[in-house]
Amino acid sequence: MQRIQDSFDRQSMMSTLGATLVSAGDGKVVIEAPILETSQQQHGFGHAALTFAIGDSASGYAALSLMDDGMEVLTAEMKINLLAPAAKGPLRAVGQVIKPGRRLMVTQAEVFDGDTLIAILQGTMVPVRAS
Amino acid sequence: MQRIQDSFDRQSMMSTLGATLVSAGDGKVVIEAPILETSQQQHGFGHAALTFAIGDSASGYAALSLMDDGMEVLTAEMKINLLAPAAKGPLRAVGQVIKPGRRLMVTQAEVFDGDTLIAILQGTMVPVRAS
Amino acid sequence: MQRIQDSFDRQSMMSTLGATLVSAGDGKVVIEAPILETSQQQHGFGHAALTFAIGDSASGYAALSLMDDGMEVLTAEMKINLLAPAAKGPLRAVGQVIKPGRRLMVTQAEVFDGDTLIAILQGTMVPVRAS
Amino acid sequence: MQRIQDSFDRQSMMSTLGATLVSAGDGKVVIEAPILETSQQQHGFGHAALTFAIGDSASGYAALSLMDDGMEVLTAEMKINLLAPAAKGPLRAVGQVIKPGRRLMVTQAEVFDGDTLIAILQGTMVPVRAS
Repeated sequence: MQRIQDSFDRQSMMSTLGATLVSAGDGKVVIEAPILETSQQQHGFGHAALTFAIGDSASGYAALSLMDDGMEVLTAEMKINLLAPAAKGPLRAVGQVIKPGRRLMVTQAEVFDGDTLIAILQGTMVPVRAS
Repeated sequence: MQRIQDSFDRQSMMSTLGATLVSAGDGKVVIEAPILETSQQQHGFGHAALTFAIGDSASGYAALSLMDDGMEVLTAEMKINLLAPAAKGPLRAVGQVIKPGRRLMVTQAEVFDGDTLIAILQGTMVPVRAS
Repeated sequence: MQRIQDSFDRQSMMSTLGATLVSAGDGKVVIEAPILETSQQQHGFGHAALTFAIGDSASGYAALSLMDDGMEVLTAEMKINLLAPAAKGPLRAVGQVIKPGRRLMVTQAEVFDGDTLIAILQGTMVPVRAS
Repeated sequence: MQRIQDSFDRQSMMSTLGATLVSAGDGKVVIEAPILETSQQQHGFGHAALTFAIGDSASGYAALSLMDDGMEVLTAEMKINLLAPAAKGPLRAVGQVIKPGRRLMVTQAEVFDGDTLIAILQGTMVPVRAS
């Protein structure tokens, strides 16, 4: 958890979006973010990039939670289906590892706005040795 | 172009990321953004959400450029493959419509960091009547 | 169920792959297929197109199960992550609707080889009026 | 080219679909297939799995064409957007490598029915040592 919190804290984008790491461990990570006035699209809803940001990060840290110390994680690819507008906030992303692996980890994430599922993500993470 | 500029200007997220609309028209849109200190991931590279934000927006506005007045655009789904780190900036996203349609528009986008292609995106946009 | 069985029976590809409709209803569909000698890739495993075929069809029919009579379904887009080889068979695809809608339905599917999860799919289905 | 032809010939699915390898080399591969009576969906169009099969294979062999002898290729993930029905045939898939790499290769493919672009694919290939 501490390793993931440290990495999370070094991401200035997470701070810009007001995101916080709620929990992390054993292949599952939860991240929350409000819909700041600075994170909106043209109709005042949360921007798709906000939803992507926390869904992708929750996925990546879920993968990192299963890796050895001294490893880091890169997103190779991520697909998002947007289901409903991000209307109220806070948004909550729940990422988990579907298939761990030494070379690739496949992840899924759900993003909620209150009780409403607003996005699902399916992606691939790559473990890399920390430099 | 004015309609797209107006919509772009209403997206506070674009301003937060320092993004600007470079050109728009006839199914093709270009958006640029620097790698601000507030847009980074844990190693000081541009965050994947920055790359996604401008790639997705360039795709959406490319679709909007082919729609009648009084229509707006929503991202239904978007897939991004990340090819290289966003190391220097400014980043430049080029979005275009591959298949226009009344119900769905399929788009592709490329994101460059200088001359380096750092991401490709493939997605689906939905035209909706402006409320 | 009968409507879905009738549509399934008209798909010559399903017959070519030896696929059968196991169950259908209320947004969830199960399809099975053996790994025929005619459905293999270069190492004798089931071909990715076999896994895709039953995962995509289970997704589409899950969507159709929630539509009114007189409607049909088209795949707009589908993304598959392959997790493990299709080694033994029969393969079993379980498709379900994550977000129903009048214009678009978002689906997920899992494909199993025995107890092993070998693929996950996430896609978008479009309802169209039957001609 | 011979190495790719040999691998192609070992895929019984390609034979089942009537697919042929048209050209291969330097990160680009072309595969053609007719719309056989045994490859159709419920309205007599070519099945999405046929389009996927040749688009995915063209992508994979495009990646293999850039690998050393003794390597083989696996699809890690593939996303397809379907743009128009496969109405007449023969279908022609053109796959190419967008980003080569030692660990991952990112590919794109287009599938045509005559002059009509009917699908685009974007995916990730993994090099593995032949056993």
